[in-house]
Amino acid sequence: MHRERGIYLFGGGHADGDGGQKALLGGKGAGLAEMSRMGLPVPPGFTIPTTVSVQVTGQAELPTALCAEIERGVAHVEAHMGRGFGDPSSPLLLSVRSGARQSMPGMMDTILNVGLSEQTLEGLARRTGEERFAWDAYRRLLQMFGNVVLGVDHFYFEEELHEARQSEAAKADNDLSLLALRGLAERFRALIEQRTGTPFPDDPRAQLYASIAAVFRSWHNDRARAYRELNGIPHHWGTACNVQAMVFGNLGETSATGVFFTRNPSTGERVLYGEYLPNAQGEDVVAGIRTPLPLCGDDSDSLEATMPPAFTSLRDMAARLESHFGDMQDVEFTIEEGQVFLLQSRAGKRTAHAALRIAVEMAEEGAISREAAVLLVHPQQLDALLHPQLDDEAPRTLLARGLPASPGAATGRLAFTAAEAVARAEAGEDVILVRTETTPDDIRGMNAARAIVTARGGMTSHAAVVARQMGRCCVVGCSALSLDVRGRTLTVGEVVLGPADTVTVDGTRGELLLGEVPKVPPRLTEHYGTLMAWADVHRTIRVRANADTGGDASLARRLGAEGIGLARTEHMFFAEDRIQRMREMILAPNADARRAALQALLPEQREDFKALLRAMDGLPVTIRLLDPPLHEFLPKAKEDITALADQMGLSEAAVLRLVERLHESNPMLGHRGCRLGITAPEIYEMQCQAIAEATLEVEAEGVDAHVEIMVPLIAEARELERLRARASACLAPYLPALRRPLLIGTMIELPRACMTADAIAAHADFFSFGTNDLTQTVYGISRDDAALFLPHYLAEDILPVDPFMVLDRDGVGSLIQEAVRRGRSRRPDLKIGICGEHGGEPASVAWLQRGLVDYVSCSPYRVPIARLAAAQAALRDQQRDTHSLTSD
Amino acid sequence: MHRERGIYLFGGGHADGDGGQKALLGGKGAGLAEMSRMGLPVPPGFTIPTTVSVQVTGQAELPTALCAEIERGVAHVEAHMGRGFGDPSSPLLLSVRSGARQSMPGMMDTILNVGLSEQTLEGLARRTGEERFAWDAYRRLLQMFGNVVLGVDHFYFEEELHEARQSEAAKADNDLSLLALRGLAERFRALIEQRTGTPFPDDPRAQLYASIAAVFRSWHNDRARAYRELNGIPHHWGTACNVQAMVFGNLGETSATGVFFTRNPSTGERVLYGEYLPNAQGEDVVAGIRTPLPLCGDDSDSLEATMPPAFTSLRDMAARLESHFGDMQDVEFTIEEGQVFLLQSRAGKRTAHAALRIAVEMAEEGAISREAAVLLVHPQQLDALLHPQLDDEAPRTLLARGLPASPGAATGRLAFTAAEAVARAEAGEDVILVRTETTPDDIRGMNAARAIVTARGGMTSHAAVVARQMGRCCVVGCSALSLDVRGRTLTVGEVVLGPADTVTVDGTRGELLLGEVPKVPPRLTEHYGTLMAWADVHRTIRVRANADTGGDASLARRLGAEGIGLARTEHMFFAEDRIQRMREMILAPNADARRAALQALLPEQREDFKALLRAMDGLPVTIRLLDPPLHEFLPKAKEDITALADQMGLSEAAVLRLVERLHESNPMLGHRGCRLGITAPEIYEMQCQAIAEATLEVEAEGVDAHVEIMVPLIAEARELERLRARASACLAPYLPALRRPLLIGTMIELPRACMTADAIAAHADFFSFGTNDLTQTVYGISRDDAALFLPHYLAEDILPVDPFMVLDRDGVGSLIQEAVRRGRSRRPDLKIGICGEHGGEPASVAWLQRGLVDYVSCSPYRVPIARLAAAQAALRDQQRDTHSLTSD
Repeated sequence: MHRERGIYLFGGGHADGDGGQKALLGGKGAGLAEMSRMGLPVPPGFTIPTTVSVQVTGQAELPTALCAEIERGVAHVEAHMGRGFGDPSSPLLLSVRSGARQSMPGMMDTILNVGLSEQTLEGLARRTGEERFAWDAYRRLLQMFGNVVLGVDHFYFEEELHEARQSEAAKADNDLSLLALRGLAERFRALIEQRTGTPFPDDPRAQLYASIAAVFRSWHNDRARAYRELNGIPHHWGTACNVQAMVFGNLGETSATGVFFTRNPSTGERVLYGEYLPNAQGEDVVAGIRTPLPLCGDDSDSLEATMPPAFTSLRDMAARLESHFGDMQDVEFTIEEGQVFLLQSRAGKRTAHAALRIAVEMAEEGAISREAAVLLVHPQQLDALLHPQLDDEAPRTLLARGLPASPGAATGRLAFTAAEAVARAEAGEDVILVRTETTPDDIRGMNAARAIVTARGGMTSHAAVVARQMGRCCVVGCSALSLDVRGRTLTVGEVVLGPADTVTVDGTRGELLLGEVPKVPPRLTEHYGTLMAWADVHRTIRVRANADTGGDASLARRLGAEGIGLARTEHMFFAEDRIQRMREMILAPNADARRAALQALLPEQREDFKALLRAMDGLPVTIRLLDPPLHEFLPKAKEDITALADQMGLSEAAVLRLVERLHESNPMLGHRGCRLGITAPEIYEMQCQAIAEATLEVEAEGVDAHVEIMVPLIAEARELERLRARASACLAPYLPALRRPLLIGTMIELPRACMTADAIAAHADFFSFGTNDLTQTVYGISRDDAALFLPHYLAEDILPVDPFMVLDRDGVGSLIQEAVRRGRSRRPDLKIGICGEHGGEPASVAWLQRGLVDYVSCSPYRVPIARLAAAQAALRDQQRDTHSLTSD
Repeated sequence: MHRERGIYLFGGGHADGDGGQKALLGGKGAGLAEMSRMGLPVPPGFTIPTTVSVQVTGQAELPTALCAEIERGVAHVEAHMGRGFGDPSSPLLLSVRSGARQSMPGMMDTILNVGLSEQTLEGLARRTGEERFAWDAYRRLLQMFGNVVLGVDHFYFEEELHEARQSEAAKADNDLSLLALRGLAERFRALIEQRTGTPFPDDPRAQLYASIAAVFRSWHNDRARAYRELNGIPHHWGTACNVQAMVFGNLGETSATGVFFTRNPSTGERVLYGEYLPNAQGEDVVAGIRTPLPLCGDDSDSLEATMPPAFTSLRDMAARLESHFGDMQDVEFTIEEGQVFLLQSRAGKRTAHAALRIAVEMAEEGAISREAAVLLVHPQQLDALLHPQLDDEAPRTLLARGLPASPGAATGRLAFTAAEAVARAEAGEDVILVRTETTPDDIRGMNAARAIVTARGGMTSHAAVVARQMGRCCVVGCSALSLDVRGRTLTVGEVVLGPADTVTVDGTRGELLLGEVPKVPPRLTEHYGTLMAWADVHRTIRVRANADTGGDASLARRLGAEGIGLARTEHMFFAEDRIQRMREMILAPNADARRAALQALLPEQREDFKALLRAMDGLPVTIRLLDPPLHEFLPKAKEDITALADQMGLSEAAVLRLVERLHESNPMLGHRGCRLGITAPEIYEMQCQAIAEATLEVEAEGVDAHVEIMVPLIAEARELERLRARASACLAPYLPALRRPLLIGTMIELPRACMTADAIAAHADFFSFGTNDLTQTVYGISRDDAALFLPHYLAEDILPVDPFMVLDRDGVGSLIQEAVRRGRSRRPDLKIGICGEHGGEPASVAWLQRGLVDYVSCSPYRVPIARLAAAQAALRDQQRDTHSLTSD
């Protein structure tokens, strides 16, 4: 255990911190500490930890205790560098940089050359032998400090630079003469005094303290906040601040600065992949004014060719870093007069393909274990492999931005209603369905469309959930869209599009683009297969898929699903040829008429089940009995009501009255799920009959069917007791002929079911947590309506993440634990799963697999993600157990 | 502790059971056992306990073990009576009666004279010296057994009786000759054999077993089921069966049968109050063919005058029974040839006024303690005292029956919209508002109406809750009503009524009546005051009221409220002059415009609060910040939208779009409560300002204001943290001038709040459970939509009671316990209350007061009920503690 310190020193082969302390020291600070410990050449410095960030927020001055610590840090750097901070003869210069737990590139502030003033300038010039260099460093400090610390707008400095360049006919700032730089420094100082009312501080300590405060302040700037919200980084983490001795890559031709990856981040190939600029500072690489040169290769200007000793040294360090961190590294370096310094090393960002290749190859090289390889790939990355993607190189014209609800890419013409989408798709057209929001009525249209775009809704809106389930690319919540369904136009600002216009949807980024954008197809490489096989060895829970059709089920199985955890029987009734019968059933005047209408649906329902059972031969298939409120199946449009009235031989008014009678204020909390099963027993009877007949028929074909019948929305044990008795009575005639018993279990998706799970378990062969509805009822939030306030909650850090995306452990999770405890107390062999959206979300899977569930179930395309996430979580738990064992 | 037995013997001064075993022996059986123990003259017999009822349900034959027990019982009766069951010379006859835990008068079956047959008839005639009596007893057995046990329709027996009476020109069955009775017995036997295919069993044991089975079966008959559902008696209780020696009140002029109350059940006066029939059986009293005679008094035909020794004996027994049971008794007796037998004694039903008088007077007489007196009055009975009631004697023409949502009675003419109700009420008319269902828009109309009737909705629908709150009489769920709002007609079957028609609403019974029915005013007697004062001594929790206006608050205080537990600020905004400003606020384009609209509402809001604080001088007032979704305030009718558009200078389309944007799929789970406070801070800011100003102003008047600000719908501690910080900032300027701190707390009404109550408690001075919303989210049931299935659930015994009426301990209760535990673990001094509908329901109050809450809050008219219920529960707990202490 580390004692918490005010600051963490590093440099000279030692460090207070280490690479494991990212939460405390930030990514950069932890990397610097670790490299120091490895004996790598890191300019000495110290890190002010993230805990201070929170503490100093909103304070006018840094606390006295912290200042004392900073002084200790400065003394440490002075000692290692043999220079003095503010010493006119041999001045030490410092960099002050932010560094959060998770990289936020370019979002926060940096101040370089701190400690430089009219007093120390001469000393620097003398030491480096470069007067021009010293003045250039000084004007850079004035500019950065003026802008970042003192808040003088960038524009004023640029203005002066522009004038200076013009007067010397200089192309770039680097071409400015010593004279011009001296003049600029003068004008920058005047500018600062004029705009802020106080002169630029010559005192190095005043510079340092103000710079540190500014870095901490920059955590709260708008850019940084926006970035965090987009990337799910909590606002309360705060940033660390790294203060480090300056080294210079711009001290002549033996100096340089650059970056490299230890492997190719795009393909994963094992080559040193980087670039550098001779005689330049790091910010020059970023600014992109000069074209960087390649690190390796035979080209005459490669680093390998121009500075062989430095290159060799870097190559050795790269190998050491990769093997030390057990991962491909992204490294920043500076060469000051032939001497190599490492400024940063961190795990390199990479494409999904590269991630798989690097992990597999590093394991095969023996650099890491297979377990470590499995842990190297972020499960969410697999998503990109499974859907066609837009070509990143292709130009794109953005129409509107929304939420990336379902990844992939698609191009087509606009369709404004589900019916239109179906008709035009059947005629062979590629269509993109655009809707204000979707309803279950739109399912066929969504299925017919290449992609779905909605103006409203969040990541778990109907459109988003169904699209992910279908593997359709989808963007939701494009609030800039304005739709006129009758006029068949889509308006964004000045642009008005109609049914003949082509758009492209980027579901991965959440963008609606004008026209066609070229795509690249998905490919599952051999590395994917290898890594998933290694992962599966360690996984301790099963992964099933939510699938409603034979097609979905087959796809899921190809993606590694070990059964179906949720087959939603209601989706089967929305097909055009079935929904009319369904409507007759719902509006039937009595149980007999209802039974007759249901019998007409039975053969098709039975075929649905047969397709599922065939696709999942040998694996369990959980079929959920009808769940949604009946009015979801009823027509809303006038012409549909007329048609239904005709068909049923009723007046329009009569049909309208019937429809009206089923209207609900809060359908989510209404007459649905098992409540339908209780009040209209004929529905579940038909479904049980169809299930039993389907099982019998596929068994005759040689299929090994494992059927689990699932009752939704149980709130009270007696509901399940009754429904189980009725279902058993329906199934009884078939049982003797069946090879296996049909299991009967229940969804646990209401808080009351969790709190009374022991009583419920007495009647259940299995539990399956419906975490979507459970999250809705536990929070009292309708996910369809959450768009009005949930984004605000995330932006304000009231909720760290969207609980419909990542399972809420404190509330929903506590109830799940309660339910598991109670359920197993009554029935130790109870099979427990989860089939909500969280079943495919890595963090949720990681938590759930820790003794709570036997399986998770998710949409087919998320199956590989769940597999990898579950394996990683099991590995991490195992490592933690081993660790706590050895440290006992 | 009693060992459970197969049967429980009684008689001859002993009994296996006792009066405390009502759950096991039923009311009747427990009473008989207790009377036996007291040495009172009870015909010997035995009770088959309720546990057997459940066990034998659906079985074809009684279990062998039970039959052996029955034989033991019969032997016991034989021994005490000195006769033999089936003994031709001295036959013992038995009665077989049902007897549930709670009285269900006339709902289940009874068979008398069991053991009589052609073989034993002569013996009975010989013993009693009455041959006609014996044959009459026999034909009664044939008729009862044939109908009840063998299921031969009553009609056939009546037919034969009719013919027999005609042929002898007899007025009543009692006038039939011996010959006629012999003939009837013959024909009844033939009838039974003909209709059932088997002869009437002459074997006494066959008669006995079949009768016992029939009594158990009768628990399940439709009548009994319906009665239980109406009276909240669980179906699983089952009935006991009492087998007892027959005694006869029809053996001549020294025999009689009758009933009496030990005090007047209508007024409570201390007089023996009863009637009797000489020479008659109990069923003759019930049949009402002969007019019974008074028990007491100087009339020549009173029992007191005609059989002085029997009367004296009964009067002594009455005194002993009342003093023994500590309550007014309802006693059945039979005098057989001068010898008095008691057949039943139970607590007598009484009016609310009588209940109070009896309790107080018995305590004052020293017959019972004051504590016992407090326990004698059922809290729910008080309800009847607090509302005007219809005169029970007056004739009534029933139009439709619904649910008795809010008690009382009112007469007026029909109004079909809230606006109409307001207008006509202002013109001095008494109106009854009839609606399909009500919405918050109807509030003013509901307030203006004398009563509210809805075609839809349950006991906790909007109409029901608001009406109870207002003390308005209300009947909901009158499903027979059909409303045409445009045509202003109400149709029930053939009857069509319009705005000129007068109706009367009986909120106590749940009836809509045609025309005017005379009423009797409510009166609170001295006995009420005395009893409530005795009750308050023992109560350990506080009782507050839910009240939104000064008027409600004053009423509540008169009824004993010790503060306001819930003041709903939104009700204040529905007034016509305020709702327009509210709408402008909601549709304001930005925070500034919203703030301006709110500032216009502030003065009136402040006055609202002042009225509440004045009425509750010295007592706590909990003000809940705005809770409902904003769209509840928006217009739906076209003309209102036009008006709003005009007023705001917008197009109708623009207003419609704004209204549409706020529409929600599940408003109950939507953008409401503290979510509004988070996203539109100006609203709560205005409310906090109004609260602070109101407090300051009433303090200047000398009022002692105890203000508690309550934040609704917290799901996450950070919500409360933010809102508390904002509220504190708003209040800060006022605090120095205020006499007391303003407390800030929260509603606990979501499952997540319960599971994270420890974190929430860190920011809360108090918790108040909102059990309405908590029940909705825990069950996942919208109370507005529950009418489609909840009645079915109650009828089917899936739920024993409506969880919106009686707090569900298993689910909602477990979460409340969890929240209390967590809350107090963080903050031991946390003040905890409840302000849902359950705060005025006796069973819920009894449970909650056991260490869970410091106070309950309910609508003003329920305050006395809650006070008494809380006192009784505390007393019972105290008695239980004493008991367990002494038995340790």
